[in-house]
Amino acid sequence: MSLNGRKALSFIHNDFEDLEYWYPVYRLREAGMTVDTAGEVAGETYKGKYGVPAASDMAFADVDPARYDLLLVPGGWAPDKLRRFPEVIEITKKMNADGKIIGQICHAGWVLISADILKGKRVTSTPGIRDDMTNAGATWLDEAVVVDGNLVSSRRPPDLPAYLAAMIETLAAR
Amino acid sequence: MSLNGRKALSFIHNDFEDLEYWYPVYRLREAGMTVDTAGEVAGETYKGKYGVPAASDMAFADVDPARYDLLLVPGGWAPDKLRRFPEVIEITKKMNADGKIIGQICHAGWVLISADILKGKRVTSTPGIRDDMTNAGATWLDEAVVVDGNLVSSRRPPDLPAYLAAMIETLAAR
Repeated sequence: MSLNGRKALSFIHNDFEDLEYWYPVYRLREAGMTVDTAGEVAGETYKGKYGVPAASDMAFADVDPARYDLLLVPGGWAPDKLRRFPEVIEITKKMNADGKIIGQICHAGWVLISADILKGKRVTSTPGIRDDMTNAGATWLDEAVVVDGNLVSSRRPPDLPAYLAAMIETLAAR
Repeated sequence: MSLNGRKALSFIHNDFEDLEYWYPVYRLREAGMTVDTAGEVAGETYKGKYGVPAASDMAFADVDPARYDLLLVPGGWAPDKLRRFPEVIEITKKMNADGKIIGQICHAGWVLISADILKGKRVTSTPGIRDDMTNAGATWLDEAVVVDGNLVSSRRPPDLPAYLAAMIETLAAR
């Protein structure tokens, strides 16, 4: 399924879960998408929990959310950092309001909680933040991948194949 | 492209390149394949260069090469270990003789060199082992992915999208 011409944005910060960041980025590039990455600082190299590096193409402040069809929020401890940036929250809110697809895996839900976009939505995440997700108004399901409208969510690295298959199907259907 | 019912085997040992091991494994699972992993010891957890873990399903000695359609050799420093096991060399020789697809990335070529299956073949690899590859009789190309018959080769992590696209296309054409 070709997604040529579509554009994705991934947030990045230190201590991302290495595979949860990289599998979606490479997979969407394989499908023909352009994937840009935004961090606190442009051109910075961040390190995953295990140390795999990933560079930011731009700073959060330089992101134009209107240019993107999809937002990726990686898992790991990065979401604990990411949710503290007002620009991250604004980008997330704007892309959600515009109906853009948002992918979240593992602890990524923390960012969507702080953007207050989970009320009445069916989602999954690492079981570790299940209570945070339900307190934010979501219905939490223990499934490899959950799709509810524009939100695609997954639990952990072994779910990555199901997560990306569902994400690509959701994109291709548009 | 569905590859349901097809089976892949990946070799595993310590200091594999984390993404070069995991991206192909998850990607082929996403495409419907069963991917088994074989290490020196069954049920052992090996660690990538950065520390991402990966467990072996079976020992090299327990592999039946006839059961598999595809062999994956990961990059990193693992190939320097892998090529020392006679079982690894025998599995590689047998699968090549049977025309099974063999994927190699980065330093993985060391295993194919020791299996002596590169004579007259067009391949790529990390430039670091270019001389070893040409000394083994291969023609070396500086391309993201090279397909020559049953051999699919790639250079480094950013080539992973091209590597898997070519591997899946080669599998699907059979």
